[in-house]
Amino acid sequence: MNLMSSQPTGDSRSVASDDYGNGAIGETIFSLAAEIFPICRSITGDGVRQTLNILRRHIDLDVHEVPSGTQVFDWTIPLEWNIRDAYIKAPSGERVVDFKTSSLHVLNYSQPVHVQMPLSQLKEHIYTLPQQPHAVPYRTAYGGDRWGFCMAHNQFAQLEDGIYEAVIDSSLTKGNLTYGEVFHRGATDHEVLLSTHICHPSLANDNCSGLALLTALVKCITRRKTRYSYRFLFGPGTLGAISWLARNSSSVRNIKHGLVLSCVGDGGGPTYKKSRIGDAFIDRAFIHVLKHASSNPNIIDFFPYGYDERQFCSPGFNLPVGLFQRSQFGTFPQYHCSDDNLDFIKPEHLATSFQMITSVLDVIEGDRYYARTNPFCEPQLGRRGLYSSVGGTKDVADRNMAMLWVLNLSDGEHSLLDIAERAGVPFSVIADLASELVVNDLLTERDIVTSA
Amino acid sequence: MNLMSSQPTGDSRSVASDDYGNGAIGETIFSLAAEIFPICRSITGDGVRQTLNILRRHIDLDVHEVPSGTQVFDWTIPLEWNIRDAYIKAPSGERVVDFKTSSLHVLNYSQPVHVQMPLSQLKEHIYTLPQQPHAVPYRTAYGGDRWGFCMAHNQFAQLEDGIYEAVIDSSLTKGNLTYGEVFHRGATDHEVLLSTHICHPSLANDNCSGLALLTALVKCITRRKTRYSYRFLFGPGTLGAISWLARNSSSVRNIKHGLVLSCVGDGGGPTYKKSRIGDAFIDRAFIHVLKHASSNPNIIDFFPYGYDERQFCSPGFNLPVGLFQRSQFGTFPQYHCSDDNLDFIKPEHLATSFQMITSVLDVIEGDRYYARTNPFCEPQLGRRGLYSSVGGTKDVADRNMAMLWVLNLSDGEHSLLDIAERAGVPFSVIADLASELVVNDLLTERDIVTSA
Amino acid sequence: MNLMSSQPTGDSRSVASDDYGNGAIGETIFSLAAEIFPICRSITGDGVRQTLNILRRHIDLDVHEVPSGTQVFDWTIPLEWNIRDAYIKAPSGERVVDFKTSSLHVLNYSQPVHVQMPLSQLKEHIYTLPQQPHAVPYRTAYGGDRWGFCMAHNQFAQLEDGIYEAVIDSSLTKGNLTYGEVFHRGATDHEVLLSTHICHPSLANDNCSGLALLTALVKCITRRKTRYSYRFLFGPGTLGAISWLARNSSSVRNIKHGLVLSCVGDGGGPTYKKSRIGDAFIDRAFIHVLKHASSNPNIIDFFPYGYDERQFCSPGFNLPVGLFQRSQFGTFPQYHCSDDNLDFIKPEHLATSFQMITSVLDVIEGDRYYARTNPFCEPQLGRRGLYSSVGGTKDVADRNMAMLWVLNLSDGEHSLLDIAERAGVPFSVIADLASELVVNDLLTERDIVTSA
Repeated sequence: MNLMSSQPTGDSRSVASDDYGNGAIGETIFSLAAEIFPICRSITGDGVRQTLNILRRHIDLDVHEVPSGTQVFDWTIPLEWNIRDAYIKAPSGERVVDFKTSSLHVLNYSQPVHVQMPLSQLKEHIYTLPQQPHAVPYRTAYGGDRWGFCMAHNQFAQLEDGIYEAVIDSSLTKGNLTYGEVFHRGATDHEVLLSTHICHPSLANDNCSGLALLTALVKCITRRKTRYSYRFLFGPGTLGAISWLARNSSSVRNIKHGLVLSCVGDGGGPTYKKSRIGDAFIDRAFIHVLKHASSNPNIIDFFPYGYDERQFCSPGFNLPVGLFQRSQFGTFPQYHCSDDNLDFIKPEHLATSFQMITSVLDVIEGDRYYARTNPFCEPQLGRRGLYSSVGGTKDVADRNMAMLWVLNLSDGEHSLLDIAERAGVPFSVIADLASELVVNDLLTERDIVTSA
Repeated sequence: MNLMSSQPTGDSRSVASDDYGNGAIGETIFSLAAEIFPICRSITGDGVRQTLNILRRHIDLDVHEVPSGTQVFDWTIPLEWNIRDAYIKAPSGERVVDFKTSSLHVLNYSQPVHVQMPLSQLKEHIYTLPQQPHAVPYRTAYGGDRWGFCMAHNQFAQLEDGIYEAVIDSSLTKGNLTYGEVFHRGATDHEVLLSTHICHPSLANDNCSGLALLTALVKCITRRKTRYSYRFLFGPGTLGAISWLARNSSSVRNIKHGLVLSCVGDGGGPTYKKSRIGDAFIDRAFIHVLKHASSNPNIIDFFPYGYDERQFCSPGFNLPVGLFQRSQFGTFPQYHCSDDNLDFIKPEHLATSFQMITSVLDVIEGDRYYARTNPFCEPQLGRRGLYSSVGGTKDVADRNMAMLWVLNLSDGEHSLLDIAERAGVPFSVIADLASELVVNDLLTERDIVTSA
Repeated sequence: MNLMSSQPTGDSRSVASDDYGNGAIGETIFSLAAEIFPICRSITGDGVRQTLNILRRHIDLDVHEVPSGTQVFDWTIPLEWNIRDAYIKAPSGERVVDFKTSSLHVLNYSQPVHVQMPLSQLKEHIYTLPQQPHAVPYRTAYGGDRWGFCMAHNQFAQLEDGIYEAVIDSSLTKGNLTYGEVFHRGATDHEVLLSTHICHPSLANDNCSGLALLTALVKCITRRKTRYSYRFLFGPGTLGAISWLARNSSSVRNIKHGLVLSCVGDGGGPTYKKSRIGDAFIDRAFIHVLKHASSNPNIIDFFPYGYDERQFCSPGFNLPVGLFQRSQFGTFPQYHCSDDNLDFIKPEHLATSFQMITSVLDVIEGDRYYARTNPFCEPQLGRRGLYSSVGGTKDVADRNMAMLWVLNLSDGEHSLLDIAERAGVPFSVIADLASELVVNDLLTERDIVTSA
């Protein structure tokens, strides 16, 4: 975090630059994403546990289990799904589809099956993407009342008639829904919620990228003293968030800012979808950061479809929770198919996403109200060495102007973010100048809880 | 009306589709407009009565007479004007202008005259449209202190010199101003006011179209049980509205929504001019309906010129009354001349106008506030058969998204129109989905009078 | 002023047209600007006094002296700077730079010096504009701890090596900061503040134009009865305003509208920079006037850099003070160099600037709230001769429409400026129509202090 006046360590660098050299954070996140990529995850089952166990090597994660049959609001935790193997064997004896080569090949949550049938009949259980014939689609049957396979349309089209053997060695049994949680206590009970989904199998951007990036964030935040408390969730989509909300109703009211993140490894966007509230502090902070980080950020209004912001922003909660992605879900051809692989995500994009999010957290942590010690007329900056009268470079002029903005708007009613927005200057610049003006006795902090 | 939950008949179809087959409503309105077209109407006189008598064959209409000399606010009801014949006879004996061929030929409210004079002198009493030389203009002299004729400029230019005979067999005598009124009692005293002007002679769009369409509306509304009470006015422009307002001051406060309509039979627009309030419910409802009914509706802010919205929106009343037209008055070449004839209006345009207005009435009647029975997280739609997970057609996806909007915004603070506006979905779709969700115990109606 | 119903003289013409024939005001202002142009002004010293003495020939001006060392808020009045001569003598004995030809040639506030040195060494004390090589720059050293000269780069480049003599016969001594003030008492204590800066040497637009125009304004206003009291300041930039504010804290709260003006003689803009408040009455009035006076006015939001609006709009005061200029400072090549001479400003531009400002003062003086005597329906304008039913020219139609706007919005809640803005009609037209409607007993004035 940037503004760490409350930190005994006196560390004033931001998360991004603090813990990693330039570029290193991207490689770190990418490696972790690559490590968890092959695992077959679903909304329940050992794939989730296996993934959480890998993340636990890096962070101190609590794993929660919610038993099948548990009622969570309007929903019931389903039977746990596990899978060991799945394949289609051609008349020639060749495995033409093999779960071991990609977890996408099985219809997620398929019921078990072991049959022999003619190709014509088997085809009713095979899903392809005729318009992206080289790619294997990602499909689900969460009801657990179907079975099926996914494969490339090109390969599918070349299958020869005959009797095929189809095996799905899965189980649907009483078990649990599993999610991971990290809580970091800050100076206040006010919480920042950061959440990402863990239920997708071998899709790199959606959402190995989000799981790995959030892990890196946990690592950074938890080693620091922060103003806010932080809660990190790694749960299956929909049911994970609903389970957490059902089991933590007393914590919900502490959430002052929240973010769902996913698909953070490609080079598109950046995309920010506002909270249902629409002008919550998280919305303003994210828009501010993205406007300075990108020439053309994709800022979209809330709509009730997407990721777990659907639950956090349901009318009974109406939490200030936005969604951050690079390319927006559903808008890129790699979405929900085997093209969303490790070639699609890049360390540099992961690093940029990480920096964008930490910049927003810097705003949340650092926003304050200040007032001029003497609010009448401008102070004489020259005699304090604060005003660069010589120089004349663009940078110096910009810095001088930013300082004049801070002095003009520090009336106890404009926060640093207000000033940054009005001046069109990055929050970090405004915050640094305010600190300098405090040191020079020109500003004093006002005791207002700003962004909560 | 669409949402007739309060109706014992259980009829849930809208007015437009209910009472007429596809297209039939347009023919019905057109026929009536054609029937009243030839009549010479003015702000007073037997032409108005004759027109009201024709309308009475279809609807139960109260005819009110306001005596000449009556003071209505700042105005005085003038002498009643009636006309039996008018012509100009050329030196050859031929009638070159004849009132019997078109009521436009006489300057409306002309004083009587019977003179012989040379053409050069007569020309001062003849009005033409040099820039539309084939058309006869519509002109008035409501002061009753002039006489004159209107004719096509082409014909006018060919008149030969000589002594002409000019006859206007009119009278200006103590009598009455006449207007028609229908009141339909609904479940509440809150009123919807619908008003159109009856003072124009043989102009088809302006306003035989409005008179005929309002008659069809009366027919539909009065045979139904409605939430609102409805008041329909067929009165001469300006003085009709002023007379009604002067004589019904106690009813005025019941008017919650109002509409002036005219020129509803051509293919232009649709045009909606907002009430003086600017964001009244009628304004929002009309804009919503027209945005879905037309790719480029003409939405204009209130300005203090036009039809009787001038009176309803005067500062002492400031009623939520807008104006609906197809082409905006004064913007089309047929306006106020003989080109505004029965060829200019079409059954299909009348039908479309009728449907637009009834769609707005559906919004007014049907707007409600709902709240989720359990507002926490999304409900599980799948097990209720409410969410089409298969299908994948655009229609299914749109319907699913609309349902998610209803569920997300039904917090007791967003009405159905609020939701429809936010979701960008027609009100009728939102209202139908809300009904379905009520049946499924996911929503309950909140007891808030919404649009009043 | 336009609306002088409160004036015994009954004079209803505006300032601009009242006191001067067409064009004469421009010549008058230009002559005065030309007269004061040669004087070497700075933030202190006899140049300021000499200038004020010239202005006093035209207006009754109080001259205030603030002693060196006086504390004014965060600032201290510096030593007074005076200069008698300055030159650079070439080895040939020729004066290659001579203060007597232009006050720009000396670095403003230079400490005294009399040295001989080689050209190479002297060059460190010479300022030029390499990119405008023919022009002499305007530079300052308000600290008084440097000395230097300014010259054209072309001439500078041709200087031959050798020993030069540099003489600056200046003094920095205990003295005073000088500013001029005029107070005109109106019907109320509410004040309009008009301020311009006097500290620039021989720069015609910046700000001989402003000094001369403000003098003309004083002349006009002080001979009239006004609703507001008026305060006019002619002070050095920054320290003049700060000194006045420090010494008049009790008057500040009376300031209801204020304007800083400078650079009012060129043909650019017009530019209006809003007050920090952003939607103060002065902002609305200026924007209204400029929109009708120019097809493309340059309206800019407040930013904390520029002229003395920086002090008036500091957070402790936050006064409703805007800035009026023609071309915006810093955006034209003549800015702060010898190209800003008497050829750059024109009588016609000065006249236009004067008219724009007086039009704004007309709005400030003339804004009122009216209400209809009978607010129900429209009044019958025809029988009062107020409505031109014949005619049909664009002007007549516009006037009729403007009158309908006045009648429709005169509800005691819309002021004349509100109506003018909504109708898109100049304030003066609306105000004249309102007066006519008052005479006809259709409107009465509401006792609301409007623009304060």
